[in-house]
Amino acid sequence: MDPSEVRIIDLKESILADNDADADKLREELAAEKTVYINVMSSPGSGKTSTILRLVEELRLSYKVGVLEADIDGDVDTKTMLSAGIPSIQLHTGGMCHLDADMSRQSLREIGSEDLDIVILENVGNLVCPAEFDTGAQINLVILSVPEGDDKPLKYPLMFSKADVVVVNKIDAMEAFDFSPEKFKRYVAECRPEAPVFMVSAYTGEGIKALAEWLRERAKEILEYVS
Amino acid sequence: MDPSEVRIIDLKESILADNDADADKLREELAAEKTVYINVMSSPGSGKTSTILRLVEELRLSYKVGVLEADIDGDVDTKTMLSAGIPSIQLHTGGMCHLDADMSRQSLREIGSEDLDIVILENVGNLVCPAEFDTGAQINLVILSVPEGDDKPLKYPLMFSKADVVVVNKIDAMEAFDFSPEKFKRYVAECRPEAPVFMVSAYTGEGIKALAEWLRERAKEILEYVS
Repeated sequence: MDPSEVRIIDLKESILADNDADADKLREELAAEKTVYINVMSSPGSGKTSTILRLVEELRLSYKVGVLEADIDGDVDTKTMLSAGIPSIQLHTGGMCHLDADMSRQSLREIGSEDLDIVILENVGNLVCPAEFDTGAQINLVILSVPEGDDKPLKYPLMFSKADVVVVNKIDAMEAFDFSPEKFKRYVAECRPEAPVFMVSAYTGEGIKALAEWLRERAKEILEYVS
Repeated sequence: MDPSEVRIIDLKESILADNDADADKLREELAAEKTVYINVMSSPGSGKTSTILRLVEELRLSYKVGVLEADIDGDVDTKTMLSAGIPSIQLHTGGMCHLDADMSRQSLREIGSEDLDIVILENVGNLVCPAEFDTGAQINLVILSVPEGDDKPLKYPLMFSKADVVVVNKIDAMEAFDFSPEKFKRYVAECRPEAPVFMVSAYTGEGIKALAEWLRERAKEILEYVS
């Protein structure tokens, strides 16, 4: 992949009626090719791109990692990834507010997931719709940033109920905002008691190692289970 | 309306095929009853509620104002409005990520728009889907907060292309983030050259008076035009 050139894939809308069944099928296909697929979801501007950049720095010490950048339009995030030497392609959803399993499959094929250990999807910035569509990922990672407020699980419970791991980003800005980590963790636990919550700053790097370690362990479990 | 009790309206999904035509019809109905309907859209956590609170403080000096609070779930925002003595009802969208014109009509009827001069809709926090559905509002107000980043019009161009007025919130946190007002205004202008951009802090109140003045003028124009 030539890092100077952004590849843009225009995704076709899926015609499959049963996305849940297709997502299960995609997980089997990913298991067969020994690939871990991580779906990163958040509001616009929570810091998905910068958190993924930090995580890939850590994860690529042990794994071959690629990043799928989904957006309605534009290619700024893919350029950021390519500048950091990370294999990445830009997905355009054609106005759609989410990815489903078949759109994931098209994207994984384009990035060449069979040659990668981990593929991270940066989903469309949206705290509503992506939660309604199983992408086939084995790990759903939900990011909320401090400036958004600690009450968001109350308003977007479906998103948090789908999270395997929750990340609070921009903790470096904690002093400027009225955000209670205790309240937030309590609200998350009401949606998804088993999801751990990591506090990070993609800006300073604080907390990233612990999150990467958790993901590395989960990836190892998934890859061992399928082999 | 008893401020101690939150009224929750479960909206029914519209069965109308042509939402655009229905939205035009709703604007005619609003003109007939002399009501200005303002649709406020942003990502989750951009500060819609606190900005609306500040604006209503100003607008209710000259107008009778009510607020519709749309959310997937919860009623925290309506409680906030009622505590401030602002007529407000809570709308539950039944998992839907947006409101259309018919859902607006149901909501306006419930809050009693014929007795109000201005009704402000706090749409579901989402920078994608609400842009695709005309609510019938005469004014679309889009909020972006500083921590979300100045590049958002590049990624969510449809939302900014629908804005009659754009508000940058949380300017009190400007120093903690790398946000260029000049870049942001340039990106907005590419989507919607005629939309003014107001810089505000709903936290400190900075910039609110200028925005309220602009809205008051627009409301006056709309009400004069229809009478």
